[in-house]
Amino acid sequence: MTTIRPRVIIIGAGFGGLYAARTLAKHEIDILLIDRNNFHLFTPLLYQVATCGLDPSEIAYPIRSIFRKNKNVQFLLGEVNAIDREAKQVSINANGKTLNEAYDYLIIAAGSVTNYFNNGALEQNGFGLKTLSDAVRLRNHILKLFERATWTDDPQQKAALTTMVVVGGGPTGLETSGALYELYNNVLKHEFSKEKHMRARVILVEAMDRLLIPYPERLQESALEQLKSLGVEVILGQSVKEAALNHVILSSGDVIRTHTLVWAAGVKGAPFAEMLGVDAQRGGRIAVDEMLLVDGVQDVYAVGDIAYLIAPDGQPYPQVIPVAQQQGTLAAKNILSAIGGESGAKFTYSDRGIMATIGRSRAVAYPYYKVQLTGFLAWITWLFLHLLWLMGFRNRLNVFVNWIWNYLTYDRSVRIILERTQDEQMQRIEDSYIQTPPTE
Amino acid sequence: MTTIRPRVIIIGAGFGGLYAARTLAKHEIDILLIDRNNFHLFTPLLYQVATCGLDPSEIAYPIRSIFRKNKNVQFLLGEVNAIDREAKQVSINANGKTLNEAYDYLIIAAGSVTNYFNNGALEQNGFGLKTLSDAVRLRNHILKLFERATWTDDPQQKAALTTMVVVGGGPTGLETSGALYELYNNVLKHEFSKEKHMRARVILVEAMDRLLIPYPERLQESALEQLKSLGVEVILGQSVKEAALNHVILSSGDVIRTHTLVWAAGVKGAPFAEMLGVDAQRGGRIAVDEMLLVDGVQDVYAVGDIAYLIAPDGQPYPQVIPVAQQQGTLAAKNILSAIGGESGAKFTYSDRGIMATIGRSRAVAYPYYKVQLTGFLAWITWLFLHLLWLMGFRNRLNVFVNWIWNYLTYDRSVRIILERTQDEQMQRIEDSYIQTPPTE
Repeated sequence: MTTIRPRVIIIGAGFGGLYAARTLAKHEIDILLIDRNNFHLFTPLLYQVATCGLDPSEIAYPIRSIFRKNKNVQFLLGEVNAIDREAKQVSINANGKTLNEAYDYLIIAAGSVTNYFNNGALEQNGFGLKTLSDAVRLRNHILKLFERATWTDDPQQKAALTTMVVVGGGPTGLETSGALYELYNNVLKHEFSKEKHMRARVILVEAMDRLLIPYPERLQESALEQLKSLGVEVILGQSVKEAALNHVILSSGDVIRTHTLVWAAGVKGAPFAEMLGVDAQRGGRIAVDEMLLVDGVQDVYAVGDIAYLIAPDGQPYPQVIPVAQQQGTLAAKNILSAIGGESGAKFTYSDRGIMATIGRSRAVAYPYYKVQLTGFLAWITWLFLHLLWLMGFRNRLNVFVNWIWNYLTYDRSVRIILERTQDEQMQRIEDSYIQTPPTE
Repeated sequence: MTTIRPRVIIIGAGFGGLYAARTLAKHEIDILLIDRNNFHLFTPLLYQVATCGLDPSEIAYPIRSIFRKNKNVQFLLGEVNAIDREAKQVSINANGKTLNEAYDYLIIAAGSVTNYFNNGALEQNGFGLKTLSDAVRLRNHILKLFERATWTDDPQQKAALTTMVVVGGGPTGLETSGALYELYNNVLKHEFSKEKHMRARVILVEAMDRLLIPYPERLQESALEQLKSLGVEVILGQSVKEAALNHVILSSGDVIRTHTLVWAAGVKGAPFAEMLGVDAQRGGRIAVDEMLLVDGVQDVYAVGDIAYLIAPDGQPYPQVIPVAQQQGTLAAKNILSAIGGESGAKFTYSDRGIMATIGRSRAVAYPYYKVQLTGFLAWITWLFLHLLWLMGFRNRLNVFVNWIWNYLTYDRSVRIILERTQDEQMQRIEDSYIQTPPTE
C-alpha cells in the first residue's frame, strides 16, 4: 500500500503508543495503531480489579473511542508477528489470518510482559498481574478458593486455600498484598463468619532486605511499618526456591502452603528484539539511542518499557508510565522532525516522582517536589493523582463513586466469579489433595 | 448430619430461591442455599451487559452479602447432581469433589436454561442469553466481529460479520434486538466511520405472526412499529430452518449471512425431573400441586421457572420473575406451616403486569393497573421500576450513573473485549471462509 502522506505504524496502545499517536494525530500523517486488545489499559489500578474493588471496564478505555475524531488514525486489533526491515512492512496476525502493512516510520511501544525467568513451574502455578485478564483470573481464583475452603475441615488444607503469597517488594507487590489483606479483613472475613476456621494470611516476600528499592529510606521503612500494621506478613531477604501448585518453598527452606502465588517480581520486554534482528538487552529490551531510534535500524523507534536507554545516573530508565509517556511524545516529535528534514531532540526525563498505596489511608509518596509523604496524606495524594490520570470522564466518575462507596462502607462490590470455561487450575488443585505435600 | 432445628435446602439463588430463603431466614430454621454461581443475577438487565451498556457486576450481587446478617443461612457454591428422596439427601459437586447434605424440606428453584430443542447446530452456533457468561460472551463476539470486518474488502463477508439475527419475539428478543441496533447506530457506526462499508443490520425473527404474544393487540402493534422506526428489521411468521456458522436459513428458504444468531426463542426447566425420578412436563418442568409440593414426592417443593402448575386460565403459569418470587415466598410459608403441623396455602398469582423496552425512549408497558403505555412514558416506567427492583444500593447507584451517562451521550461504555482463552468460535468462523457458503 503506498500513500502520499507519510505513514507511521505504532505497535502498542499503552501509555507510550497512546502519547505518540496523540502527538502525530495533529499533523498531516497517516497513523496505524496496532494492539492485541481493543482498549487502552490504566495499569496502575489493575490490582484493584484483581482484589474486587473495580470493574474491568472502569480501567479500560476503547481505543477507537480515544481517536474517534482523528480521521488520520486507523486502528487494527491483532498481534504483530513479523517486521520486515528491508521492505518496511509489519505482519499482523489474528485467528490465523495475516495482514501486511507498510510503514515509513515505525514506533515499537509494545510494553513488557511478566518475567517468570524461564521457571516453568512458576509460570504454570503463579499469577502474573500485567493484563486485564490476569486481574480477572486472580479475582476469580481467590473467590473460588475461599468457597472451596468451606468444603473441608482439614486445617492444613483450609490454610493452603486461604493463604496468599505475593512476591516482589515494588509498588505492585505492596499494593496487591495490602489490597488482598483488606479484601479479607473488611469483607471476606465477615461473609465467611459462619464457617469455621476461615482465617486468611497474606505474605509479601521480597528478595532484597528492604521494600521499594528506589525510594528514600524513610519511605521504605514507613511502607514496611504500614504494611505490618495493616496485617500483611512481610518476609525480606528471601527468594522463591520452588513454586508448586500447593506450596511455595523459600530460599531459607521454609515451606508455605498456598495455592495463590502472585508474581510481581519482574517484567521483561515484549519479544520484539528477535523480530527486528537486534540483540536483546537485559530484560529483553531493545537498545535505542538518545533520539529513541533503535540502534542500527532505520526509521524504527522504540519507547517505554521495551526501550533500553541508559540514564545520566548510569542505570537504564525505569519501566514506569511517565517514561513511556515522555518517550512516546518525543519519538513522535522526532518523526515529525525527520519528515521535515530536521534533526530530532534527545530524550531527557522529567521525573514526576514515585508513589505506592498500601491500603485504606496507607501509602507512601515522593511526588513532584520531592516532599516525602506517608500515611493518610500520601494516600489522598495517590487517590487524587490517579483520578486525574484516569482517562475518560465516565471512567473517572464510576471509579470515584466506587472509591467513595468502598471507603464509607469498607465494601468491595465486584465479588463475582465469572468464568466461561472449565477451570483447569482448580481441577489440578483438587487432584493435588490426593498427593502428600511436603512437611512444613 | 442431624440437626435439632429443621433444615431446609434451597437449590438455586434466583428470584424464587432468594425469596424463599429470605422468608425462612426470619425463623428458627437452618437454611442451606446452593447455587452454581456465587451471585444472584438480575436477569432483566442481562441484555444490557450483552450490548455494552452495563458491567457484569452491576447486575450480579454476591449471595453471601445478601445473607451476611442471617446466621441461619449457609451458602454452598456447587452443582447439585443427585437427590436421594428416601435418605432425604442432596449431592453437590464441584471440580470432581462431592458433598452430601441432608434436608428435612427441599425447595427446588433451579430455574431454566436455554432450550435449543435438541438442535446441535443451533446450540453450537447460537448465542443463548440466560447467564452472565452468555452476556459477556455475546458482547465479546460482536465487538470481535466488527474488528474482523475491517480486515476484509469482500462485501459479502463484511455483511456476514456485521449482521445480527435475533430469534424470538418475546421481551428478551425485543430488548436485545433494539439494544443491538442502538449499539451500532449510536456508537459503533461512528467508531468505524473511517472503515469502508461498515453497515450493520439487526434482524428480529419470530415464528408467530405477531410479537409479544401475551400482550394486548395495541401494544403488540406499537412494539412492532417502534422497533421498525428504530431500524430493526422484523420478520414475522418464519422460523429458523438451519442455523449454520456463517448463515441462517429461514422456513421460507431465505438465507441470511451472519455469524451472530441470538437464540431467545425458548427456555426449558433445569434437568431436575430425572434426578427426582418424576415425569418431566412440557419444557422439562416439574409438576407441582397448588401447595407447590412436587407431585408424589414428600417434603419437596418446586418454584419458579422449573415448576409446572396450571393457572385458572388453563395455561401453566408463565416463567417470569413475579411468579418465581411469589412461589418462593409461598413454598417457604408452607414449609413453616408443615413444621407447625398446619396445612399450607394454595398458590394464587398476583399479576404485576408486563413490560418490554425497545430502546431509547421506546417501550411498551402494561403494568399493575392495566393501563396500556407506549413510547417514552412506557420507557420511563420501565426504567423506574427496574431501578427499584435492582438489588443493593450500590448496584442501583452505578446503573443509574451509567444510564444517565448513556442517555446524555448516546454512549455505551463497556466496549472491551475481555477473553482469557483462545476463541474457538472465531477460529471456526475464520476457517469457514475457505468453504463456499450457499447462495443468497
